[in-house]
Amino acid sequence: MSSKKIILLNGPNLNLLGKRETHIYGIETLDSIIDELKNYALKNSIILLPFQSNIEGELINFIHENSNADGMIINAGAYSHTSIAIRDAILAVGIKTIEVHITNIYAREEFRHESIIAPISLGQITGFGKQSYFLALDAMYNIIHSQVR
Amino acid sequence: MSSKKIILLNGPNLNLLGKRETHIYGIETLDSIIDELKNYALKNSIILLPFQSNIEGELINFIHENSNADGMIINAGAYSHTSIAIRDAILAVGIKTIEVHITNIYAREEFRHESIIAPISLGQITGFGKQSYFLALDAMYNIIHSQVR
Amino acid sequence: MSSKKIILLNGPNLNLLGKRETHIYGIETLDSIIDELKNYALKNSIILLPFQSNIEGELINFIHENSNADGMIINAGAYSHTSIAIRDAILAVGIKTIEVHITNIYAREEFRHESIIAPISLGQITGFGKQSYFLALDAMYNIIHSQVR
Amino acid sequence: MSSKKIILLNGPNLNLLGKRETHIYGIETLDSIIDELKNYALKNSIILLPFQSNIEGELINFIHENSNADGMIINAGAYSHTSIAIRDAILAVGIKTIEVHITNIYAREEFRHESIIAPISLGQITGFGKQSYFLALDAMYNIIHSQVR
Amino acid sequence: MSSKKIILLNGPNLNLLGKRETHIYGIETLDSIIDELKNYALKNSIILLPFQSNIEGELINFIHENSNADGMIINAGAYSHTSIAIRDAILAVGIKTIEVHITNIYAREEFRHESIIAPISLGQITGFGKQSYFLALDAMYNIIHSQVR
Amino acid sequence: MSSKKIILLNGPNLNLLGKRETHIYGIETLDSIIDELKNYALKNSIILLPFQSNIEGELINFIHENSNADGMIINAGAYSHTSIAIRDAILAVGIKTIEVHITNIYAREEFRHESIIAPISLGQITGFGKQSYFLALDAMYNIIHSQVR
Amino acid sequence: MSSKKIILLNGPNLNLLGKRETHIYGIETLDSIIDELKNYALKNSIILLPFQSNIEGELINFIHENSNADGMIINAGAYSHTSIAIRDAILAVGIKTIEVHITNIYAREEFRHESIIAPISLGQITGFGKQSYFLALDAMYNIIHSQVR
Amino acid sequence: MSSKKIILLNGPNLNLLGKRETHIYGIETLDSIIDELKNYALKNSIILLPFQSNIEGELINFIHENSNADGMIINAGAYSHTSIAIRDAILAVGIKTIEVHITNIYAREEFRHESIIAPISLGQITGFGKQSYFLALDAMYNIIHSQVR
Amino acid sequence: MSSKKIILLNGPNLNLLGKRETHIYGIETLDSIIDELKNYALKNSIILLPFQSNIEGELINFIHENSNADGMIINAGAYSHTSIAIRDAILAVGIKTIEVHITNIYAREEFRHESIIAPISLGQITGFGKQSYFLALDAMYNIIHSQVR
Amino acid sequence: MSSKKIILLNGPNLNLLGKRETHIYGIETLDSIIDELKNYALKNSIILLPFQSNIEGELINFIHENSNADGMIINAGAYSHTSIAIRDAILAVGIKTIEVHITNIYAREEFRHESIIAPISLGQITGFGKQSYFLALDAMYNIIHSQVR
Amino acid sequence: MSSKKIILLNGPNLNLLGKRETHIYGIETLDSIIDELKNYALKNSIILLPFQSNIEGELINFIHENSNADGMIINAGAYSHTSIAIRDAILAVGIKTIEVHITNIYAREEFRHESIIAPISLGQITGFGKQSYFLALDAMYNIIHSQVR
Amino acid sequence: MSSKKIILLNGPNLNLLGKRETHIYGIETLDSIIDELKNYALKNSIILLPFQSNIEGELINFIHENSNADGMIINAGAYSHTSIAIRDAILAVGIKTIEVHITNIYAREEFRHESIIAPISLGQITGFGKQSYFLALDAMYNIIHSQVR
Repeated sequence: MSSKKIILLNGPNLNLLGKRETHIYGIETLDSIIDELKNYALKNSIILLPFQSNIEGELINFIHENSNADGMIINAGAYSHTSIAIRDAILAVGIKTIEVHITNIYAREEFRHESIIAPISLGQITGFGKQSYFLALDAMYNIIHSQVR
Repeated sequence: MSSKKIILLNGPNLNLLGKRETHIYGIETLDSIIDELKNYALKNSIILLPFQSNIEGELINFIHENSNADGMIINAGAYSHTSIAIRDAILAVGIKTIEVHITNIYAREEFRHESIIAPISLGQITGFGKQSYFLALDAMYNIIHSQVR
Repeated sequence: MSSKKIILLNGPNLNLLGKRETHIYGIETLDSIIDELKNYALKNSIILLPFQSNIEGELINFIHENSNADGMIINAGAYSHTSIAIRDAILAVGIKTIEVHITNIYAREEFRHESIIAPISLGQITGFGKQSYFLALDAMYNIIHSQVR
Repeated sequence: MSSKKIILLNGPNLNLLGKRETHIYGIETLDSIIDELKNYALKNSIILLPFQSNIEGELINFIHENSNADGMIINAGAYSHTSIAIRDAILAVGIKTIEVHITNIYAREEFRHESIIAPISLGQITGFGKQSYFLALDAMYNIIHSQVR
Repeated sequence: MSSKKIILLNGPNLNLLGKRETHIYGIETLDSIIDELKNYALKNSIILLPFQSNIEGELINFIHENSNADGMIINAGAYSHTSIAIRDAILAVGIKTIEVHITNIYAREEFRHESIIAPISLGQITGFGKQSYFLALDAMYNIIHSQVR
Repeated sequence: MSSKKIILLNGPNLNLLGKRETHIYGIETLDSIIDELKNYALKNSIILLPFQSNIEGELINFIHENSNADGMIINAGAYSHTSIAIRDAILAVGIKTIEVHITNIYAREEFRHESIIAPISLGQITGFGKQSYFLALDAMYNIIHSQVR
Repeated sequence: MSSKKIILLNGPNLNLLGKRETHIYGIETLDSIIDELKNYALKNSIILLPFQSNIEGELINFIHENSNADGMIINAGAYSHTSIAIRDAILAVGIKTIEVHITNIYAREEFRHESIIAPISLGQITGFGKQSYFLALDAMYNIIHSQVR
Repeated sequence: MSSKKIILLNGPNLNLLGKRETHIYGIETLDSIIDELKNYALKNSIILLPFQSNIEGELINFIHENSNADGMIINAGAYSHTSIAIRDAILAVGIKTIEVHITNIYAREEFRHESIIAPISLGQITGFGKQSYFLALDAMYNIIHSQVR
Repeated sequence: MSSKKIILLNGPNLNLLGKRETHIYGIETLDSIIDELKNYALKNSIILLPFQSNIEGELINFIHENSNADGMIINAGAYSHTSIAIRDAILAVGIKTIEVHITNIYAREEFRHESIIAPISLGQITGFGKQSYFLALDAMYNIIHSQVR
Repeated sequence: MSSKKIILLNGPNLNLLGKRETHIYGIETLDSIIDELKNYALKNSIILLPFQSNIEGELINFIHENSNADGMIINAGAYSHTSIAIRDAILAVGIKTIEVHITNIYAREEFRHESIIAPISLGQITGFGKQSYFLALDAMYNIIHSQVR
Repeated sequence: MSSKKIILLNGPNLNLLGKRETHIYGIETLDSIIDELKNYALKNSIILLPFQSNIEGELINFIHENSNADGMIINAGAYSHTSIAIRDAILAVGIKTIEVHITNIYAREEFRHESIIAPISLGQITGFGKQSYFLALDAMYNIIHSQVR
Repeated sequence: MSSKKIILLNGPNLNLLGKRETHIYGIETLDSIIDELKNYALKNSIILLPFQSNIEGELINFIHENSNADGMIINAGAYSHTSIAIRDAILAVGIKTIEVHITNIYAREEFRHESIIAPISLGQITGFGKQSYFLALDAMYNIIHSQVR
């Protein structure tokens, strides 16, 4: 079985994970979480390609440049609620996408209840801290291999 | 490590899984999925107690009667979008709750985009077919054992 | 020509027909109307299977149990305006459905103007008293036999 | 029993019935349907007076000129959703009115879900193709003769 | 002092004045009111040119054809609430316009509370029965002669 | 014919008439307009009792104290759009009321388009400068003497 | 003076009173409160017939079956905000009804601010803990005996 | 037990109680009701200090001046729906407050359905005529003495 | 290459082009513009069939009568924002349609921002004065000949 | 340089500053803050004329009476969100106005987010406690002397 | 005649033209279209300066840097619906702007129906594929040379 | 007293200050204003660190990199109304923030009335031209040194 390439996008402010507001987001840094995820993925022959940016357009560029990936896991942070452009990028490249959120966005401010990305994703996992990423990886693994959905 | 009790609630029309609209919901019956889930849970010393009803109040009754459970996984189906009463029941008994949906509710009709249960759940997993339940079980397992969140 | 089976569902408070608010709903009881309808149907080789319940989930159960019916005539009463679950049940079993109302719901309170069931029905007949049921039966007869629509 | 006069109004674009979009509206022309309806009516001693116009004000004129009719069946087409003036005309002359639609307007675009005419009609029949007219004729017959509603 | 020409427009259903719904609109016919108004106007050297139509576009045509009038009094009936086209016509010809209503539109259905014509009129007089027209004539007389406003 | 008593209420900021923003409201003071109105009224055996206040509750007090008046003409200024209390006062004493505005409120800011007082008035006259008051006086005269409306 | 029969309905989750969320709802159980209420009622020759259910339709059934009661006190819990069916049931049987809430629903979530039952009740008492029921009983006593309202 | 001081505020138009619209508000005057209430209160060692004004700011002044009261019962009339200032005054002095309405505000016009004062009151009693005040007094008595809530 | 027939519809008030409000709409008359357009079209073997009416239904009639045209350019004026009937007519005959506006409707009043016709047109050109028509003709020419879109 | 006169208005409940809710509004009384402001102003040759009232109309009266002032600083408290009348008063006298709030109104309840006075003020300063007044005084000083804006 | 400089901006995802979703956007790449446009422009002595970026702020930077251009044609893609900042940039530099869209945005998702850029553009051309750009170039040519608009 | 570090952020298009639309924004360039501000700050031992970018994400980056600052003054320009991401960045680093606007945003377009940043700022100063920055600096100085708020 050949290995698969999954891109992992993190949007604005997620570079602060583990450094700020740790009572909400936990004490682990994004780098540390990504390392753990990479290892976990590798066991399933998945190569995880991570990217974080606070710039909306750079996220779009990265999606374009990796349009050959087998799947995408995205935590677009605040851009989840405002960026039609990221949505369009995902649609354009046609990558299988899973949306992830660390916190339960439905238990927060009204303006976080609607994700513009959700309707064009396969599914959404929200509220489980760093575990959200691992669950998304599991889900993606199954989707890629079963190709049944 | 003593075993944990997790209740698994399925709301209206989910008894038809695998029998109707199989192009949308898949060909496996609810019974078959539950059996698989039970086995999977047992390996992690989790006893899964399933319940399905089309009657809103019976779901509430079941939640009341099992208020001693260590967690709840709920797919409230259409009641997710209309039942303040189920939300109140969950709040009242104070069980750790994960909301699950088989389909991506955000890619369907407008009236399915808001879940009344989501804001009082720990998290939500939506869109992964039967796998949504397995991911929820994994998430619940971690939550119960880490007690960190 | 073999006979056809049509289920006739009546939702909450319709068991009070002819007993309460007769100035609005007329003096005939639901039983009496159903008897008349059954006879009328029989002449067209239609076997009418009636069911009334004030419990949303029991209406759903009945729909599930009679998924082999050739058609359904439903007056869901107040649940017409609130029950996504009944809508889902109808979609799930895929029965040809005609929605019926005794009164003209568009001449009443604002919250009665939208039926959640109407968009997934073949058609709606509203405002003709008990005659609404008879017109629905005629419409259903034609639909079943012409199979053209 | 003296014969009754019922006017049958058809609004904009209904003159194209059977000529355009036949996959939606059927293959019978308005003229052909009206002929059939006239014959059907005559058997019940009802004289049907048909009128079609694409001009809102001409429909109003016709209603004014036939204010002595015993009833009106109206398919106001697109004007159903925009014409307060037709509504006022119906109220002004005080004719018993039944609203009819060929398609199920509740299963179409959002702007077709509200009829301005429905609240001042006796009832509405929608979604049964040309049969909608026949059902309306039956309903009108009963209303006129029973005078019970 | 040379005489002035004022056009008096009446929209849909106002031809029924005095013939229908006399408990609401009074027992005088539009013709009779117009005669009275013409005489009253003449005393002030105003020639009143009346026009009534149920057809929106004919009202527009009449406005175009009389763009040389010194003023307009308009009771656009139901079109007051729906016709951007009449509003545009008034703006285009630039006639001084007073809007009139027989009944108090603010005490009636919600959809009669907004007039599309009011914002481009000099003023509005509503609720005084046929007297509304006479008051408008007085107002117009003063406006034309004082040219102060 | 015995003389009639009409109260004339002016709300907040109308005491500035003729002193401020004269390009909008004209150069005549409220006192001067009221004197003219009083004389005009007297010729028709109407005694006009004027009152102006910037205090919402004082307007209410005045209405209570003059509940025996034969009619009221009110320009409630900004309170027209916010005061349910003045509306309630008018309803409570049951005086025949005509609402007046100097400017065309429908041609101004959105928040001036709805008057809370209009729906419980006999009629409204808006947009004719000081003439609005004279027209209202004429209208009131007719209403009082014809008692037909 | 013959004794009167008052039915006391409690909706979803109220069976948990005194058992769960006692910091919000107090430490007394529903049974204990009902006993106290029964005794209190009896002193005023009122026989209190209590019923609690988590099932919307069972509450409706109970209302139907006790349509001969002299009055109803209802705390419909979450169904207060969603159940048109219960509202219809109350209207249908025509029982004098007082709505009660333990907490101040207007100080809680937005979706608890509107009660569908309030507009068809005689009055509403909200926010006084178990005392709300006692106040309702007093109010009902006066209403029944004075028959003035 | 030392006596308690409760202030009783009545807002705009309530001075007309028993004098106007007696078919809605009853035939007893505010003075008469207050006398009855005072006596009733005294039996429970409560000194009732009444105040009525049609002026929003005077109600606020009175609240400020009596900030040492043990409780407040307020029927703010129309100001209930518009006065953030009264709400702020209540919050500022921190008096325990019960809101009262004579009529069932939820069965009246839409704009009376929201009370700005309700969310910061302990509770609300609405719809029981003059009895609403007595029930509020009972409720206040219990709250003051139990200090449990 | 055989010549093509394109119909050119102009709605209400466009007959005033060049005669009224020339500071907004320019000084050329509709006739003059149409002549220029006809000549321009002819060079591309397009026969332009113009029609203007202020009557909504006449525009619909013209569309019906020319259902064999190869394309339509329509400036429906004010009807663009209110006429579902014209939209239905276009859908019914299935002509390729381009919507045109002389002014930039998005820079004008809010109610001009939504065109009911735009969603069923191929495209829209707005804001270029008479040039809008020429651009539309160019666009239509390409569409007809490439048949690629 | 001659001295300037600035009026300082404080609306409802601001007389309680330093006496109530000191955890929110600080411990200094309005009198003390005003004294400090007066002294501070005097150093810049500004005479500060303060006024506080809980009565909307008295604030309007004060504005009228001081229409000759060189500027106004206003904290209209709750009336900021409801009083069109105060807005009109400011517009009428045409005083340069700066709006001030002690707390950050945008971090409080939704209904405090819109100020009716802000759009007609020069600017707004909100959220800096008593310092808001001093900043406003500085801003006003610059505006008056530079006369550039 | 000296040559003119027109800038051509393309927003997010438009770099994918001809590479992705070719069934919607056509098979030509942005580079190829731009080459064609440049040649076409040159014939009219227009020098076309193209720029594409997925980064909102870079588009703004480019607009700033080319504020001396004679005109701008912009297809802001998804930013058309969300970017007030680009709108402000266009207003700031004051370039004549034409908005372009490849697809008919009014026939797509609701959130694409409003362009924030349209109200400050001269005009909009939408729905003609790559031809939209050519039409815009023609329109711009005329605007620049006639300077009449 | 050690010196403090305050960061000063300016968002999109503010680099054009003094260069474009000088009638609105004044003739001083951003550089010139910043120089003045730096000097002014230095006198109070405040080191001002300015940053301007048209790129949303760069503003976020700058905030992250200067999370150790003692305070932030931000004029986010158009991003004030659209950027949840900047809001999140401010919350994440927890810097004391004052929002500033040069113009009175409440006197401009509707979409500028809501700032997403305001609710998480200490306060807002809007409408005083370049002086807004100086007032903010004064306010920040006091906040830092009093640490009382």
